[in-house]
Amino acid sequence: MSNRTYHAGASSLVILLAALLLLPAAFAAGPEPDPLTDTVAALQRDALASSRAWEVLESLTVEVGHRFTGSSGDRAAVAWAERTLRELGFENVHAEPVTVPHWVRGEASGETLSPFPQAMELIALGGSVGTPEEGISAEVLEVGSLAELEFLPDEQVRGKIVFINERMERTRDGSGYGTTVAIRGRGPVLAAGKGAVAVLIRSVGTGPQRFPHTGGTHYDDELPKIPAAALAIPDADVLEAQLRHGEPVRFRLRLTSRTLPDATSANVIGEIRGRERPDEIVLLGAHLDSWDVGTGAVDDGAGCAIVTATARLIGDLPRHPRRTLRVVLFANEEFGLSGARAYAEAHAEELPRHALAVESDLGAGPPWRFGTRWAPEARPVAERIAAWLEPLGVELFEDEIHGGADLIPLAPARVPVAELPQDASRYFDVHHTANDTLTQVDPKDLAKNVAAYATLAYAAAEIPESLGPAPEVERSR
Amino acid sequence: MSNRTYHAGASSLVILLAALLLLPAAFAAGPEPDPLTDTVAALQRDALASSRAWEVLESLTVEVGHRFTGSSGDRAAVAWAERTLRELGFENVHAEPVTVPHWVRGEASGETLSPFPQAMELIALGGSVGTPEEGISAEVLEVGSLAELEFLPDEQVRGKIVFINERMERTRDGSGYGTTVAIRGRGPVLAAGKGAVAVLIRSVGTGPQRFPHTGGTHYDDELPKIPAAALAIPDADVLEAQLRHGEPVRFRLRLTSRTLPDATSANVIGEIRGRERPDEIVLLGAHLDSWDVGTGAVDDGAGCAIVTATARLIGDLPRHPRRTLRVVLFANEEFGLSGARAYAEAHAEELPRHALAVESDLGAGPPWRFGTRWAPEARPVAERIAAWLEPLGVELFEDEIHGGADLIPLAPARVPVAELPQDASRYFDVHHTANDTLTQVDPKDLAKNVAAYATLAYAAAEIPESLGPAPEVERSR
Repeated sequence: MSNRTYHAGASSLVILLAALLLLPAAFAAGPEPDPLTDTVAALQRDALASSRAWEVLESLTVEVGHRFTGSSGDRAAVAWAERTLRELGFENVHAEPVTVPHWVRGEASGETLSPFPQAMELIALGGSVGTPEEGISAEVLEVGSLAELEFLPDEQVRGKIVFINERMERTRDGSGYGTTVAIRGRGPVLAAGKGAVAVLIRSVGTGPQRFPHTGGTHYDDELPKIPAAALAIPDADVLEAQLRHGEPVRFRLRLTSRTLPDATSANVIGEIRGRERPDEIVLLGAHLDSWDVGTGAVDDGAGCAIVTATARLIGDLPRHPRRTLRVVLFANEEFGLSGARAYAEAHAEELPRHALAVESDLGAGPPWRFGTRWAPEARPVAERIAAWLEPLGVELFEDEIHGGADLIPLAPARVPVAELPQDASRYFDVHHTANDTLTQVDPKDLAKNVAAYATLAYAAAEIPESLGPAPEVERSR
Repeated sequence: MSNRTYHAGASSLVILLAALLLLPAAFAAGPEPDPLTDTVAALQRDALASSRAWEVLESLTVEVGHRFTGSSGDRAAVAWAERTLRELGFENVHAEPVTVPHWVRGEASGETLSPFPQAMELIALGGSVGTPEEGISAEVLEVGSLAELEFLPDEQVRGKIVFINERMERTRDGSGYGTTVAIRGRGPVLAAGKGAVAVLIRSVGTGPQRFPHTGGTHYDDELPKIPAAALAIPDADVLEAQLRHGEPVRFRLRLTSRTLPDATSANVIGEIRGRERPDEIVLLGAHLDSWDVGTGAVDDGAGCAIVTATARLIGDLPRHPRRTLRVVLFANEEFGLSGARAYAEAHAEELPRHALAVESDLGAGPPWRFGTRWAPEARPVAERIAAWLEPLGVELFEDEIHGGADLIPLAPARVPVAELPQDASRYFDVHHTANDTLTQVDPKDLAKNVAAYATLAYAAAEIPESLGPAPEVERSR
């Protein structure tokens, strides 16, 4: 950055010459303004001055609140999204039906019975079966990780409530989640295989606040389905301390969760049609569904607000970009990705014409970095976009990316994807908790995200070159 | 501070001379060491190196948890306190019975019914009556303050659920609480007097976390008793935003709270007996009871741990101070001060021999400042103690003080009191919420408090002079 500034001042002749030589390439390096750079600057300025993302997010959280897959809130959210995109002047606004599971949380309670009776804050994991009406009472067996559980002989586990007490690390990129979340997804199956009667996990989350973190878990049809819940971090601390006393700790867990027949939800779509190649799509995704315990402001109301405000802002330009911007508010990201799969199926024919797909689903922190998974020949485009993003505090990163959960089903079609994730340092403090509310969101960070997403989306929709096809994805993904 | 250091180095002869001249006064100003100063320094050093307060607090919160007045936790806490003080080698350990009210929270739920149905996080105010089984459904009337409610004509209030939407300000001294808490205490009576059917308040607390804050409220026997609850701050934000839409907002409130017959609790007392004047008492107070929704780590487990560790630390000195240190863990501070009143009655004869009383009841933040309400002639003692406290970051303050809620009943006997409050900047984020847990407490701050309290307590128990009687309290208090 400082190097570039120095050259611009001291050797502008060299730069000018270089720019002239490179002019035929749309992405000439160097500081000289060009129409694309000017437009990006104007978009960023307007985004930072606008409160539209905040207004969209406030509207969603105040008028709908939570919108858990299959719930009445889910239906209200679909109606809200169609109404909102229409009111904002999007084109081709419509809802595409998606069949979704319908799990109902019911009530949850838990308590240590001995040696020190104490009620605990806990929450059922998404998809958990309920307990018998009177609950399940058993001795607690603590393990520090799935690996530790794996190596325990069955007879030590049989009849116990397994407490998986693994701590998640706070990181800026959210990687602490990736390395810990398996206790939530795989804990119940692993414990059931060894004869456990229920599973408690330390919430997969960060921070000292007393909110248990939910999130989906899975069962194996060959094994008993055992109830599974997450303790709030302070309660995991208390249980851990009680266990340190050395006496057996008995616990009672009671959940009234159950699964109802599948329900219907929808992906909601709205477009800003391209002026030259309207059949080429830049997909701006976020997921409309949320867990049922907060108002889903951060996960993923923020994403819905960011991509909606981004597309609207670009649509307000004197002329639309070359390609179509398509906002896709996915159904049911949280509980099985059925919206994402339905989109990939319904739009299979069109996927080769997806010029780029990006999803905002890491909360409402400031935009932080930018990565791509697209054709190696289009690497200079990534660098050019990164230079535009730099003043927003966003830097290019080189890690392998997949582009957001809802974009996974697009990978076989080799759709180019980008990631423009938020700083997630505090994201997992509220993620999947009742504390995920608008009060946690900073309107300035939201506007900054719109500035960053508008930069990327406009560039992808306007540049003449193709970014695809993306490299083939390895089988394991 | 730096001035004093300079003098000590450069003009020590002058200082020495001054010290010699002033020797007859036990509190000669100046930096020359004396036995008292040496002992205070040793106490501070030992306090900062000790984890005893943390261990006491962990034991209370892990083995007992909440201990709401009249509950089984309350009884467990009394047993815990007697056991703990005995195990720590206190003398004269005993429990003095206190009759306490016994209110039971039951369940609480609430939701907006129209125009935008949404479940809300709320909590019954302590003492609230319940609603009918099906709840109370009515239109919401928002007011910004008690004053605004007071001036509304009855016909505007009649039949409504009054929503008192006043924000508490974050301050270091907790004064924002003092200026706002009347909405909790007086809101229900004021609203009932105008025909309201229920009251909702914005939680009297700070921060963005979604925990409703409880706390006691009051009724007037001449008026209908209407149910009263506090909304979590994010939920108050949502309700406020819904009301801004301009359409009538209907709300359903359901509480199953009820009051049971009085119960028995106890003040728990333990002493470090004085070596010369054992019948003169330095009272170190905190309250043992807590609200029923957290584990009361901050309010007031921290205070219990601080005063217990303080007295124990001083008791470990090669010789006990002149006067007796009496730790009093008061029953029922939160719900009517019955423990404090019972103590004042039971010890009425002894109150004139209370050399000082101090209570720690502002949480677990670092010690911040030091104030006194004692005989004007003993002012130099305050300054001397303040000089010792300075290295701990504690400064002398001159505001009028009363010495903590549990010390109010001691005022008519003109017992000298001090305040050594914690920095309360974050106290009201967790105060009276489910989030009041050990995970919120920093062990280093706790140790720092013990260092500060030990300084004050040792000085008060050791100096030959009397600090009393305190100035007479005006009638209004």
